[in-house]
Amino acid sequence: MLQLALQSLQSKMPQPTQTAIMVIGGAEDKVHGREILHSFFGRSGGEDARIAILPCASREPALIGDRYRSIFQAMGAKAIEVLNICDRAQCDDPVLQAYVSDCTGVFLTGGDQLRLCGILADTPLMTILRSRAQAQALTLAGTSAGAAVMGYHMIAGGGSGETPNRSMVDMTLGLGIIPEVIVDQHFHNRNRMARLMSAIAGHRDRLGIGIDEDTCAVFEGDGILQVMGKGAVTIVDPGEMSYTNHAEVSQTEPLCISNLRVHILDAGSCFDLHKRRMTLLNR
Amino acid sequence: MLQLALQSLQSKMPQPTQTAIMVIGGAEDKVHGREILHSFFGRSGGEDARIAILPCASREPALIGDRYRSIFQAMGAKAIEVLNICDRAQCDDPVLQAYVSDCTGVFLTGGDQLRLCGILADTPLMTILRSRAQAQALTLAGTSAGAAVMGYHMIAGGGSGETPNRSMVDMTLGLGIIPEVIVDQHFHNRNRMARLMSAIAGHRDRLGIGIDEDTCAVFEGDGILQVMGKGAVTIVDPGEMSYTNHAEVSQTEPLCISNLRVHILDAGSCFDLHKRRMTLLNR
Repeated sequence: MLQLALQSLQSKMPQPTQTAIMVIGGAEDKVHGREILHSFFGRSGGEDARIAILPCASREPALIGDRYRSIFQAMGAKAIEVLNICDRAQCDDPVLQAYVSDCTGVFLTGGDQLRLCGILADTPLMTILRSRAQAQALTLAGTSAGAAVMGYHMIAGGGSGETPNRSMVDMTLGLGIIPEVIVDQHFHNRNRMARLMSAIAGHRDRLGIGIDEDTCAVFEGDGILQVMGKGAVTIVDPGEMSYTNHAEVSQTEPLCISNLRVHILDAGSCFDLHKRRMTLLNR
Repeated sequence: MLQLALQSLQSKMPQPTQTAIMVIGGAEDKVHGREILHSFFGRSGGEDARIAILPCASREPALIGDRYRSIFQAMGAKAIEVLNICDRAQCDDPVLQAYVSDCTGVFLTGGDQLRLCGILADTPLMTILRSRAQAQALTLAGTSAGAAVMGYHMIAGGGSGETPNRSMVDMTLGLGIIPEVIVDQHFHNRNRMARLMSAIAGHRDRLGIGIDEDTCAVFEGDGILQVMGKGAVTIVDPGEMSYTNHAEVSQTEPLCISNLRVHILDAGSCFDLHKRRMTLLNR
């Protein structure tokens, strides 16, 4: 009964069709309303979508790849390939490159963001994928580790339960799909505000974006971020930061950071990335 | 050897003498440098201090009272009373009132802030204590539960690991010693940023102050807050908050909060409570 009711609800939901870069905070609903995954499906072209699933962040890529394949198949997608890329050499494969050049939706699963970057960063396949995503020629979604890689700078790991400090966050380079942001995922669920603030103190030219589980920051390429899902998207904006001791302190000393601007945005909220403020599109 | 070195260091440290309200985030060092407790001792008059210890937040008031008595005795305080107040009727006792009217330092221990308020709120003893603290006639320190009670509004309890929401924080009234603040303690140690932000969203006329363990926010009555100790004092300022859905959402729906200003201040930092910005006194 519930399943029927949900299917009925889904069929009534407006299907978003515009391509987007979808940054998902992990643990998105895969069983019930599947709101975020449904949006990815719709934005990839719905039943006409040509979807590539990249499970290479995971240590069980076949398993996780099949899971997403089943989900998108159940939604009605006919053309789905799981691209189980295990090493960088595969990124030179013209067949894989041709598929990525032609597909309408790419989904980066969770796992380990270092593993994902280790395989994809600076490869011909990644160049195709990034340029097509930035040109809005396809919808690119990443969840958890697949979200973490979106920025030029990436949070590789870190801690919580401490006064913000430099050792609390391990930074490296990401895939640069949305270069201006530093993404953190499972955000409030794993108490990551302090580590995102620690990261941002060292990168004042970026924007920190913390995404809760089953929550998505949708970038449509118009400079507006939209929130969908169960939790919140948190923006940590250092644009007016007036002081930090980040360059002076040791790895473990407390950071001092003055004048961060923070926005916590629930589903339906929009944020103007250029003006760096919540917009009144829907409120 | 270490002990001797620390004692030698202590004797060289300048002894603060000005009275203050000292809001301590809990778990202050009681064994080694004892920086914060030493500052309380000095600000209460040093060897000439007349100190009252109020352990009534605790379920083991005799034990915790004795512990602080030993510490201040070891520092050289001669006149120390542990005021083991168990019920509100004792707050009418003229002998206790006379002692509080005459003492130079009062220390509120940790425990349960609801218990502390239940005993002290709206009693003649509390009226004396608050008015003398506000008139800078004595130094009043509170740690953990003793810190939580400082504001007019008080965080009684709450959670972490969630998207900010109204049910995440239980609000009640505190002792109103520094009415304009809402204090949270054990702050980064227990990942309380989301609950303080949840509290502040509903009280935009207040200033959120999150204090880490072994860290103290020192209010000298000049409108400047100074930080001492091992961690940070975090200011959550809703003065420019441009939107919140706090009044509209249910207890468990995600809060939307736009435009909070956040400052994370390490030891030595100062914050101007009127201008609501970090000051350059020491930087």
